[in-house]
Amino acid sequence: MGNFKGNFLLSAPMAWLKVALLLSLVACAAARPRVVVVGAGISGLIAARELLRQGVDVTVLEANDRVGGRLWRTKVGSGANSAYIDLGAQWVGPTQLRFLALIDEFKVEKFPTWQDIAKGAKTLQWTDGALKDPTDAEQKDFLDVQGKIQELTKTIDTNAPWTHPDASALDAITVAEWAAANADTEFGLYWTLNNARSRCEPKTASFLHYLWHRTISSEGGEPQKWLIDGAAGQFPELLAAQLPRSAVRLEEPVHKIVMGKGAKPITVYTSKRKVKADAVVVAVPPYQAGRIQYDPALPASRRQLLMHTPLHNALKVMVSYPTPWWREKNLTGSAYIMGLSALQTLVVDASNPRPGSPGVLASFIAGEAAVRWNDAGKDARRAAVLADLAKVYGPEATANVVSYDEGDWPGEQWAGGAVFYMPPGTWTQFGKALRPAQWGGRLVWAGTEVAEKWAGYVEGAIVAGEKAATDAASAANGGA
Amino acid sequence: MGNFKGNFLLSAPMAWLKVALLLSLVACAAARPRVVVVGAGISGLIAARELLRQGVDVTVLEANDRVGGRLWRTKVGSGANSAYIDLGAQWVGPTQLRFLALIDEFKVEKFPTWQDIAKGAKTLQWTDGALKDPTDAEQKDFLDVQGKIQELTKTIDTNAPWTHPDASALDAITVAEWAAANADTEFGLYWTLNNARSRCEPKTASFLHYLWHRTISSEGGEPQKWLIDGAAGQFPELLAAQLPRSAVRLEEPVHKIVMGKGAKPITVYTSKRKVKADAVVVAVPPYQAGRIQYDPALPASRRQLLMHTPLHNALKVMVSYPTPWWREKNLTGSAYIMGLSALQTLVVDASNPRPGSPGVLASFIAGEAAVRWNDAGKDARRAAVLADLAKVYGPEATANVVSYDEGDWPGEQWAGGAVFYMPPGTWTQFGKALRPAQWGGRLVWAGTEVAEKWAGYVEGAIVAGEKAATDAASAANGGA
Repeated sequence: MGNFKGNFLLSAPMAWLKVALLLSLVACAAARPRVVVVGAGISGLIAARELLRQGVDVTVLEANDRVGGRLWRTKVGSGANSAYIDLGAQWVGPTQLRFLALIDEFKVEKFPTWQDIAKGAKTLQWTDGALKDPTDAEQKDFLDVQGKIQELTKTIDTNAPWTHPDASALDAITVAEWAAANADTEFGLYWTLNNARSRCEPKTASFLHYLWHRTISSEGGEPQKWLIDGAAGQFPELLAAQLPRSAVRLEEPVHKIVMGKGAKPITVYTSKRKVKADAVVVAVPPYQAGRIQYDPALPASRRQLLMHTPLHNALKVMVSYPTPWWREKNLTGSAYIMGLSALQTLVVDASNPRPGSPGVLASFIAGEAAVRWNDAGKDARRAAVLADLAKVYGPEATANVVSYDEGDWPGEQWAGGAVFYMPPGTWTQFGKALRPAQWGGRLVWAGTEVAEKWAGYVEGAIVAGEKAATDAASAANGGA
Repeated sequence: MGNFKGNFLLSAPMAWLKVALLLSLVACAAARPRVVVVGAGISGLIAARELLRQGVDVTVLEANDRVGGRLWRTKVGSGANSAYIDLGAQWVGPTQLRFLALIDEFKVEKFPTWQDIAKGAKTLQWTDGALKDPTDAEQKDFLDVQGKIQELTKTIDTNAPWTHPDASALDAITVAEWAAANADTEFGLYWTLNNARSRCEPKTASFLHYLWHRTISSEGGEPQKWLIDGAAGQFPELLAAQLPRSAVRLEEPVHKIVMGKGAKPITVYTSKRKVKADAVVVAVPPYQAGRIQYDPALPASRRQLLMHTPLHNALKVMVSYPTPWWREKNLTGSAYIMGLSALQTLVVDASNPRPGSPGVLASFIAGEAAVRWNDAGKDARRAAVLADLAKVYGPEATANVVSYDEGDWPGEQWAGGAVFYMPPGTWTQFGKALRPAQWGGRLVWAGTEVAEKWAGYVEGAIVAGEKAATDAASAANGGA
């Protein structure tokens, strides 16, 4: 019994018992439902965590070499004079309840922004080539236009904007056309367009789409009220760390999803593997979801929709300094810039308020400016942004730059832009196809764009991920 | 020397000679440039044939289980009472010189359409629920609007519509808006929109896009002058038959194209194989080209363009009868239908004039009607189309139906719709990125949409394929 052979032969009854146990484990494992999540943005990671909590095995397949999607942080500065900044989504507001809960869960601190604290400090206004405040008439014009938009948002059914009595008319024009017809001053028109451009391209986006988006993510909800210590981009990392190590596969773009016949599993294909699943959550922007091959093909209405959901051509730019030097000059750091080369919109102070943190100015290169700078490369954009800042803030804006960083979302292959929008005629023709699951509920859509509130924000991504997880778990368990 | 061993050993010098010859052949094969063509539509097949003629090895990778793309024929009827009909592109006109040359090359006959021959025959007009001819004022309104469009097309630079002095204004509105502002009667508006809908969705397409498309494919060029004996869909089959059998691989969607560093080859990935190439021709619609992963990623401007190039939501429907029975009733077979359930546009006689050929009525389900019927399935569409035809043509339209066939282009996963179009703001922001090759000229775009004339037609597909072949051959040979 001491030698190997004897041990093997004589312990046969024990071996059989082991085999029987092993088989029952295999059976259990096979019975445990499995869901594949496509995309490791925060929506996909939230979905994956929730699926695990609901007793479902999960594999997350991510195209990029990092988790986070349109949440992405980087560290600027060094030693005590450093901080994390967000190259993507950044702020949180008081009605974004699921995001606030996530912040609390990880015991992360949030801070009010400097412009809310700096009582009496000045916000710069750059107009027609000089620092110049708008006239009262100009300001009134802009506010009147905003008031009109606000009134219209009260008439939108957020879950079905196509049911609006004037849906056809509102979906027939672009944001830019409506703005041109409603603003009386060049100033009012410029800032109406720029305000819209934080969400979508006004030249291309349907006015109904814009109204829908203003309704589901109202400025009254103060979505930029707080900054997050350590940056919003930390949450994908924190969530991924809670998943089994092998559950998240990076650099594995999914190019094909094939439904098994009857109760057979779905197969999800990457260049490196095939993964079987009882249900699939696709947690990427609608346009990116449309790049995947589905077998059987998605219904024509859904595919037409996915062809009409471009992502907004907007880059986020962040310039970091050793200190927020503008504060000593009694400035909020905010500047409204009308018409420079790269910066044509709001610049804000996005500094972490912890002592010693770098001073950070954040802005966007979007619309016409993005078209100008899209393909120019980071170095050229850096030079243009700094030149623009110097005009508005003075020479200090180009002195002692610690870091120039950007979220080049149009340049990121697996994003393609900031947030989705729809051109005219899309909501009223194909809007119904945005959210419903396919394949008898086994192919479920997540990602911030399908959220019924705060679509395009972290809050929407979390809510959409949670809902998708519940729907997919139900489908994977054979439920309706 | 008679035994195997002796033979092997003693013939060693001969063997070395063979090895040397073999190596030189391998070296020759390696030196022969290779191009991969993505997509076996007529543009890709023309490119492939031209590349072979220029001494380049070619592999064509096609996603679908057939060649032809948006050219596709099927046989209706049986025996002597049968004919091929086109589920996709069908007609040819006198200025489509490359298509005419292809027709001649294969010694195929073409025929004038019945409506051009049937002198004195009546074209039906269905308006507001009854057969009713428009008033003179209504007809004049429609023609006046067409005249205005015609005048505007004279101002368009077909290669660079964004250079038009009013480009911003023309690209700011949809076709539907322009039509609403320019038609005075309900009739004039309806038919202006429907005329546009043969090309693009007027609710979503930019007016500048429509003007561009009217300019490069003018109705004055009579693009529907002739029908083709055996159907236009025969040419992809004829072209594919001229290529080496192994050169065309069906059911192999390309999901990734990776550029080798420096002079290294490009690698093209399908689920079944990797193919090395010195240059690649992507001969699919722009939206479909954007579904492929490129490494390195395409420039942001190009990717933004590809996000803004939906394919038109239009199905082609064909109803076949034993004979063109309407001709005996002195009808052209054509009918202008205003406002039925599935058919809301022109119906035409598309019968082959050979004696014994079936009578064929062709039309489209597009726009609002397509949205209604997209996901309903072929049987439901058949019932709706026949019910519509019965209203206009009488009960004979539902008696003795030999075949109901459709080109469900929005339902075809690898097409996605009929022809591409651009929503407002696209040509002026991203139009420049439509045609230029990438990766130092090694990644070349074909497909009808990149043609400078007759884009969206067979003619454009051929011209684009020929140009792409020359460009790709030059790049594959190391040329500039």
